[in-house]
Formats: sequence, C-alpha cells, structure tokens
Amino acid sequence: MKFKRSERLVFMTQHLTSHPNQLIPLTYFVDKFSQAKSSISEDIKIVKDVFETEGIGLVQTTAGAGGGVTFRPKIDHVRSVEIVERFMEVLKTKDRLLPGGYLYMSDIMGDPHMMSDIGKLIATMYGGASIDAVVTVATKGISLANAVARELNVSVAVIRKDNKVTEGSTVSVNYVSGSTRKIETMVLSKRTLKEGAKVLVVDDFLRAGGSITGVINLMEEFSAQVVGVSVLVEAKQVENRRFNDYTSLLKVSEIDEFNQSFVVEEGNCLEYIENDTEEHQS
Amino acid sequence: MKFKRSERLVFMTQHLTSHPNQLIPLTYFVDKFSQAKSSISEDIKIVKDVFETEGIGLVQTTAGAGGGVTFRPKIDHVRSVEIVERFMEVLKTKDRLLPGGYLYMSDIMGDPHMMSDIGKLIATMYGGASIDAVVTVATKGISLANAVARELNVSVAVIRKDNKVTEGSTVSVNYVSGSTRKIETMVLSKRTLKEGAKVLVVDDFLRAGGSITGVINLMEEFSAQVVGVSVLVEAKQVENRRFNDYTSLLKVSEIDEFNQSFVVEEGNCLEYIENDTEEHQS
Repeated sequence: MKFKRSERLVFMTQHLTSHPNQLIPLTYFVDKFSQAKSSISEDIKIVKDVFETEGIGLVQTTAGAGGGVTFRPKIDHVRSVEIVERFMEVLKTKDRLLPGGYLYMSDIMGDPHMMSDIGKLIATMYGGASIDAVVTVATKGISLANAVARELNVSVAVIRKDNKVTEGSTVSVNYVSGSTRKIETMVLSKRTLKEGAKVLVVDDFLRAGGSITGVINLMEEFSAQVVGVSVLVEAKQVENRRFNDYTSLLKVSEIDEFNQSFVVEEGNCLEYIENDTEEHQS
Repeated sequence: MKFKRSERLVFMTQHLTSHPNQLIPLTYFVDKFSQAKSSISEDIKIVKDVFETEGIGLVQTTAGAGGGVTFRPKIDHVRSVEIVERFMEVLKTKDRLLPGGYLYMSDIMGDPHMMSDIGKLIATMYGGASIDAVVTVATKGISLANAVARELNVSVAVIRKDNKVTEGSTVSVNYVSGSTRKIETMVLSKRTLKEGAKVLVVDDFLRAGGSITGVINLMEEFSAQVVGVSVLVEAKQVENRRFNDYTSLLKVSEIDEFNQSFVVEEGNCLEYIENDTEEHQS
C-alpha cells in the first residue's frame, strides 16, 4: 500500500502525540510507509514546524543508526495562561467551601480534560529535568499524577495511608498532618521505585505541607531524589512550611467560611514557562 | 497567516485526538485557517480515512448550523489482541504473587502508557453506550478510570473507603468484602454524580465481587444506571458472584502460592470488539 504525504502526516501526528517523550525510530515510519528516509524526514519537518508554531510541543530528531524522532509536549505561555485562568474560574464557583475551610475539588480532579491540560502544563515546567517517576499521595493526587506521567512517559508511584495486602513489602514513615496535628503513617510498596530514582512529587492541595514533608522523608528511605514538587492549589498565608521549593497553579487565601468567600490568585507556575513574547521584546 | 493542507492536517489530527468524543464546530477550523468550508471538509475526509484504515478511531461529521466533527476512539481487533497479549505477558512476570494469593499490580496501574492503551480498549467496548461518568473504587482503580474517562470525555467519580472532610456531604453503603468477609463501608460525595447518571464501573481486580456489588448498591442510592462493569483481571473459579454481566481483559486461576505459579488466560473483552477480518470472510 502506497501512502500519500497527507496520509503519512495524519498517521505520524497521531503516532507522535500518543507516544510523548518516547523515541520512535525513523525506520518505523520508513518501513510502515515504504518510503525513503529523506521523504520521512521532510514529513517530520512539517509536523515539527506546526507543533512549534502552534505551541503543541517540540519534535526532536536524533541522527545515527539508533536515531529517531521524539515528541516533547511543551505548551506555550499563552496556552498556559489560558489553563491557569480556566482553573481559577472553576475553583471560584460557589459552594466549594466545606466545613473547616476545606475546598471541594473532587470534581476538578475527576475532569480528565482539565487534568490533561494541567498535566501538559506541569510537564512543560519540569520537562527539561530528568525524571523517572511521578509520586503522589492517595487518593486525590492520583488523577493529576497520571496526567503528568502520561506526558513525561514515566511511571506513577502512589503512596498510601493504609497498608494494603496487595502492595507487597512496603516502606513507611510517620508524619504530622498539618491540618489535624495527628501523627499519621504513609507507606509505599518497596518495588514501586528503583533506588536512586529521580521523582517529581505532585498533589492537589498544599496547606501546612505535613504530607509533602512526609513524602520527602519517604523518598529519602528509597534514596530517591526529589526533582520538584508541584501542587494545584496552595493555601497562601501558611508560614513555616518545612520546604520552600515548589510550584503551584493557584493560591487561595482569606478563606471565610461564614460568608462562603475566599480569594484566588495565580501561583508561581507561569514563571517557569518560557514567555516568547517577552523575549522578542527584549 | 496562510496554512497549507499539510499543515492543516497536522493541526487537525492533533486537535481531534486530544479532544476525543467532543464536537468540534467546523467553523473552528474554518476560522483558524481562513479557509472555505469545502476545503476543511476535504481535510477531514483525509483524516477520517487514515483513522479508519489504521484502526485509530472514527471521525464523524454532523451537518447543519451546529455541525462539526467528532473523533471517537475505536481501536480494531488486531490492536485489541495486541493490548491484551501485552498485558498478559506483563502479568505473567514472576514475583507477582503475594501472600494470600493476591497479585501485585501497582506497577501496571502506574504505567500510563499501558493504562492509556487499556483505556482505549475499554472505551471501544463501551463507546456505543451513552455514558455520563466512569465510577471506580479508590485506590488502584483510579488510574484506569482516568484513562477510560479521558477517551470517553466524561468525568470520573471515585468511591472511597474512608470519609474525608474534603468530600463534603456523602452517601454511604456497607458491603461484605469478599476476601476478608468483613463488613466495610464505601462513600461517594453527593455532588460527584448527577441523579440518574449513566455510569460505567471499572476496577483493577474482581474476586468475589463484594466491592463491585457495593458499588452497584451505592449507584442505586444515586438513582444512577450502571451501563457496564469492566475489570482488568478476574479470578476465574469464583462462584456465586452477585452479578454476572461484566467484561474482563484477563482471567487468572490455579493460584498456587507455594510454587509461585498461576494460570492466565484471555477474558471475554475481545468478544465485544468488532472483528472485521471475520466479517470479511463470512
């Protein structure tokens, strides 16, 4: 079967975007389309240019015998602002404030389209780092961790607060929950993470940071290196967090349960997204 | 800016595959490319033909003022067999058997690429049904639920076994855990599901079925309609399950803890995937 360039482009675009951060050997396309390497390279050039112009991502080619093409999701600043603003809009909707000043966010975590967008944003922020796994704490962080890991093409390690028989041997640490001040335990299956793995920690909400401090301690037990910490929402006026180096999409403050009101503003995440517009101006 | 057909095809392919089961108005592409509707329709025809020939999915166009184009992920029989066989190969790897005859599967649930493939397979099986949400039980089913919901473009509702303050008002049911014979409780936030929603239930492992029976009972409390139940792995020799209508990717049996051995075979899922080869032959 002979493929036209138009048909090759459709297939290649689909194949690359469904295999983010994965090296596709050029020979895969050469064989699939029975086409000369030079034509395939021209096809890839077209995909690459559109992806860069449209802020979809980078298409990197590596030469040589083991050469190939890799799609790296990387959204641009404009798209990132759109994602943060859309998230802000949804977070501001009423009736989200629960007793104790907690925010209801399960609908957001259960929206795969929003998770996918936010996954692309976080993958763009940390895409330059070498990462082996995305780590999160059950339950709410899991959908976010999956969305990020999918873009980075790495595995997800889920830390649990209960020790289930289906996890095999586990390593556990105790931590002080910032909100309840109670001592709690978190466990991770021993075989989930390789020793010395580089991990990105993600979670839905950062309050006092007790739970993320627990994660960091647990990572030490695995000799894992925490490359970054990224949360969807942070509570603004919290002092004395035991770690400072993290990114957030949104910050909430002035939570007033009585009047069902709170203030939402942008987190620091956009500082980590290249802003081409500014660069061109300077 | 003027776009060539080749560039339009790259953008459209990327846009459609990243918005599965979502109607994109034709005018979106018409405006984006400053192109006549007829040219855009020809572009779509090219994408549609490649997607169908290559077993990627269906591209459906609807006419009229509110018309547009929808990408419906639908993998073919050959690809489905590949996914099931790959899953079987991974499940068969040694050291997976835990004390009590449980199978370690956290690595599989934490592999976003495998979850994405399996998500496409389950979405293909249930893609014809009208579904409002994918429901699962924390913790392990969440990554699968997300992968399926992403393809179907619906939300995920996560049933928990603990009642967290961040869930707001909840509805709970008690159920008998098939494996421990203990009475346990599962809860779902009231606002997660709309009354009368049509839901697809997914989970990682089906043993006696106590937990899925609990889910079905909980869905009754929400006046939700269970459209289907799909699990990754079912234990074969279990009798008297309280429901019969489900699909599975794999079946395990003859679990022998002492010799660290068990038998894996295909579940019934492939019966629900159209087999064009057979149709052509008959």
